[in-house]
This record gives sequence, C-alpha cells and structure tokens, in this order.
Amino acid sequence: MNDALNATADTVDPVAYIFNSAVAASAIGAAWELGILDALQANGTLELPQFAAEHGLDPQSTLGLARALAAVDIVERIDTKVMPGGNFADAYRNRSFFHWLTRGSAELFRRMPDVARTANRTGEFYQRDAAAIAYACKEISELTYDPWFWDAIDGLASSPAVVADLGCGSGTRILQLLDRFPAARALGIDVAEPALAVAADATAKAGLTEKVTLIADDVLTMAARPEFAEVELLTCFMMGHDFWPRQRCVATLRRVAALFPSANTFLLGDATRSTGVADKDLPVFALGFELAHDLMGTFIPTIADWESVFAEGGWRLREQHRIGIAVGEVIFELERA
Amino acid sequence: MNDALNATADTVDPVAYIFNSAVAASAIGAAWELGILDALQANGTLELPQFAAEHGLDPQSTLGLARALAAVDIVERIDTKVMPGGNFADAYRNRSFFHWLTRGSAELFRRMPDVARTANRTGEFYQRDAAAIAYACKEISELTYDPWFWDAIDGLASSPAVVADLGCGSGTRILQLLDRFPAARALGIDVAEPALAVAADATAKAGLTEKVTLIADDVLTMAARPEFAEVELLTCFMMGHDFWPRQRCVATLRRVAALFPSANTFLLGDATRSTGVADKDLPVFALGFELAHDLMGTFIPTIADWESVFAEGGWRLREQHRIGIAVGEVIFELERA
Repeated sequence: MNDALNATADTVDPVAYIFNSAVAASAIGAAWELGILDALQANGTLELPQFAAEHGLDPQSTLGLARALAAVDIVERIDTKVMPGGNFADAYRNRSFFHWLTRGSAELFRRMPDVARTANRTGEFYQRDAAAIAYACKEISELTYDPWFWDAIDGLASSPAVVADLGCGSGTRILQLLDRFPAARALGIDVAEPALAVAADATAKAGLTEKVTLIADDVLTMAARPEFAEVELLTCFMMGHDFWPRQRCVATLRRVAALFPSANTFLLGDATRSTGVADKDLPVFALGFELAHDLMGTFIPTIADWESVFAEGGWRLREQHRIGIAVGEVIFELERA
Repeated sequence: MNDALNATADTVDPVAYIFNSAVAASAIGAAWELGILDALQANGTLELPQFAAEHGLDPQSTLGLARALAAVDIVERIDTKVMPGGNFADAYRNRSFFHWLTRGSAELFRRMPDVARTANRTGEFYQRDAAAIAYACKEISELTYDPWFWDAIDGLASSPAVVADLGCGSGTRILQLLDRFPAARALGIDVAEPALAVAADATAKAGLTEKVTLIADDVLTMAARPEFAEVELLTCFMMGHDFWPRQRCVATLRRVAALFPSANTFLLGDATRSTGVADKDLPVFALGFELAHDLMGTFIPTIADWESVFAEGGWRLREQHRIGIAVGEVIFELERA
C-alpha cells in the first residue's frame, strides 16, 4: 500500500481526489513555468508572498496554486510557507508530461465532445499550442531518449563524417552530435520553419553555422539533394508515428534508404502504443498521449507494428532499446539491409 | 481505508494516478455531454462500437475516452464493453462540477501561468466558456441549492404576490416559483441578455408571458422601477459574491432594501470560501472554484464575512441553511431589519 495515497484516502473521497488531481495537474504545469518547482527543488522551502513579490506574481493566485499542489501531496503547506511533499520528487521528474497535458494539449482535451463527433472530424478540427508542446517535448526527450541515445551512439563502429536529423526541431540533437563528433558536419531537416529559426539561432550561438545545414522540408515527401549523399548517420526522434499507416511507413523507410545512400545506421526513436497494460496500471503520460492521438486521428504503432515493417522498408533491426519510461518509448537501431 | 483508491494504489504510482485523474476529469465532462454517462446509468452496460455508431462518434476516440474513465475506476472496461466502476455513482452525481472545470473553465486553467503574472492582470485578462458554464451551473444549482431552497419557501408565513429573482439567468427559478405560487407574478433581472432570451423563450413555452417581466439590468447599479414596489419575495442565487468587496456589499444590500420596499424576505444563496479545511481534505469542486476565482481576482467571502454585513446592510438574518455539498454553499434567509 502506497503511503502517499494512503494519507489522503482516509479523509478525501475518491471522486474529490480525482477532481483535485485535475486541478493539481494544471498547477504542476504552471508551477514549472513560473519557477516554483525549481525554487522548491533548489531551496527545499518557499515563502509564497516573497516569491510572488520577487517574480511579479499575484499573491492570491500563487497561494491558490500552492493549495492545489498541497491537495495531492506534491507540497506541504503551512499558511504561506510550502515545502516538498511526498509526491514532490516524482512530480518534479514528470513535470514535462503534465505541462504537455495541461498547457500544450489543453485545448484538444477541452473540446473532446466536439472532436469525438465524426461529423466534426474534417479540416483542421483540433488545435494545440505548438510552442508549449515544444517546451515540454524538449524535456520529455531528455528524460526518456537521451541516456539510451548516447548508449547507441557510443556503440557505433566508427565516427560519422556527416549526420542528419529528420524532424530536427530546434536543433538540440544535431548540436549535441557535433559536440560528440567534432570533425563531423550535420544536416537538420524539419517542416516547421519557426523551429528552424530557433535552430539557426542556436547554431550561430554555438559558432557552428559553417558545419550545419538547415533544410525546411517535409521528411515524408522531400526530394533528393546532393548533400544527402554524404550522410552516414541518420537520426529521427518523436516523429516516426507520422510515417504510418503501414503502407506509407514502408514506402517512407525505403525512400529514406534511397535518399541517403551512404547512411548505414538509422536511429529511430519514438513512443509506441502500450499493449497488455490494464487501464488502471497505465503509467504517467501513456493515457494522455494515446487519447490525444485517438482524438486527433493519428495512428500510434505498437512495437510489433514497427518490427513488421523494417525488412520490407529496406532496413535490418540491429538492436532495440526499450525505454518504456512513459509511453513505450523505444529506439530502433537500424542498419541498411 | 477506501476500496476504490486501494484498488489502484497497489499497482499505479501516485503521480501516474494524478496524471490519469486529470485525463479522466476531461473524460467525465465529455462523457456527460455525449450521453455516455446517462446510457450507463440507464442500462448498466454499454457496447462502445455500437454506441459510437448510433451517436455519430469516432470509435477510436470513444474507446480512448472509456479507457480514461476506466483508469480511475469510473467504469470497468472489458475490451469494447463498459460497465459502471466503483467510482461511477459518485462521479455521475458530481459530473457537473467536472464539466465546470474541464469545459467551462478549461481556458482559464490552461493559461494559469499567464494569468498569475501581475503585469497581465488588466483588461479582459482571462476567458471562460459562458455557455458551457451555464450548462454545468444549471445542474450544480439543482444538486446543491434546490432542496434547501424549497424548504425555505415552504417555511414562508404567507404566499408572495410578486417575486423577483436577481441574476435570474435562464429563468428556471422564477418559473418554478410561479408553479409553486400560481397566483403570483414574477420579475427576472439579469445583465446577460442572451440568458434573458432563453428565459423569455422558456416563459412563453410555459404560457406564463403575462405573469413574467424580464428586465435587462445590472443588479449592482440598477435604478428604481415602479414594478419593484410590489415585490414581496426576493431571491438571488450564485451571484452574491459579485456584491463584494465589503463596502460595496453593504451598499448593495441597502440599495436592494430601498429598491424593493415591500420585500420582507430575501433568500440569498451562494458558495462561500471554505475555512478550516486542510488542503488534502477539500471536497469536490471547492479547490477548483476557489483557485478559479483567485486567478480571476474575484473575492469569495466566507460565511463569517457575510454574517458581518447584514445588519449594516439593512437586513436581519432569520435563518441560515448551510448546505456545504461542495463549496460551502449557504442560503441566508433574510428579513427586513
């Protein structure tokens, strides 16, 4: 029996706990953005009126936010003073998932009854906050894929001369790869031009503009380019589900193999749909991630779905890193078949 | 120890339970609107693909929604079949509070980090969905105030000739009062003209247009009208907190006494701010209601705050009905001092 739930179960009825958890989930996302979680993590205590004054926050709203965190034992509150509660460490580590839910995807979940109606599911039938999702996904990626990613990189037989990141977003991964392989050059490809502007800025700040080529194009439809020929290492994170359904995924894998003829290693990391987990045992994130994609009509493949396409797509599965921190994240280490 | 929490606490970690509760809270609001909760309540079981087909819903979204409810034991799911779970009865009764949170107030909670910053708190600095809030508040009012309201009405010494409802909204209360007092006439006063249009429609449907006067005016600032002179019973529900802060509340109570010189009974029902409840013991709704008003900068008085203004405002507290189902709801039965 878990102590943290035990502490509330005697006094609060279960449906009130569900309600208060929903309020607290929004408060976790907000508290991260407002610096409250970091201040608590760093200092172990926080005087709310002082924090509000120093950070330009409304004192009554700040107190209300802290009450929401205290309701589910993320903090302990004594009047205007808060300290980490029994669930703080876990909530702190998982804050990016809460932010993804209550900031980035809030508008999608708010409109669930409209979005679920078949008659409404045409055109741009849902909205999410792309900037907020990028903010959360940067930390989600660090939390889930990064340790396993560097394990895979360390296991490479040789240093690649050129790397390409498909769906590079704000460019964090290509800059990290250039740091790891100082002699290499890098291509970053993404369909989102605002993200590429951030990547260009970060590249300039790192003094790496000479070594980086940023390309605004759609990985699913892009044509060959001369600079693709030299790429030896391909990476692609948190976008592989966009390759699906199956037939398109096979075609995309084949086309990637043809577009990058020198790429012998392809590290493909993504979340996969959970299988064999009872509804009540779902870990943090999986339920929200999967329901969001159900609502958006985006297919999320299982690990078995992925395993069924590699050979047909022209790749051999060299190794599989099952991360499974939240939503069955996996890194497939592929080599040219 | 509560069985419903017990069932999940052994297998799910507490922070995953908080996350899944937040997803489930949205699903409760949606499931109410989509008729899923009523179908389960009526039939005791529901075959998801059949329900989706009959109601024009996307099957995958409907299944995902049911998984969210199952994650916190509101339903039991076996493949595509769902039945009420251990928390169903309680969630069903409290569905309007979840809808208020995840539909009506979702945009306010999504923007918590922006709204909490003092620099942003000017002009129309927050949005909520007024239509969704009206949808939820109709049921919230029935659930909380109605039984006590009719007790107070039954206790009146005589039948009023004319009643007036301050903040009448869509007119439900004045029509109910005319049903109870068939010889009476009624005034409905509200600042929201769309709500008055609904009230006019409902009045016409009930064949009571001759007996009802609807007035578009702001209770806080309105001038005297000849028809106010005959009003013997005043009611005002779920808007009393708008009278505050204190000085304005005293002035408003005095002005109401002067505007309605024949009104000897004033039934004033509203939510009050909880006091002396530990953060972890907050019942359903209170945390969301109070944090929402903190964010919006709206003062919510305590019962003691209210008790301190009546004498000064020209009214005597005849009786106090403490309901306290969710947010310290109370009906003050006032008589002219």
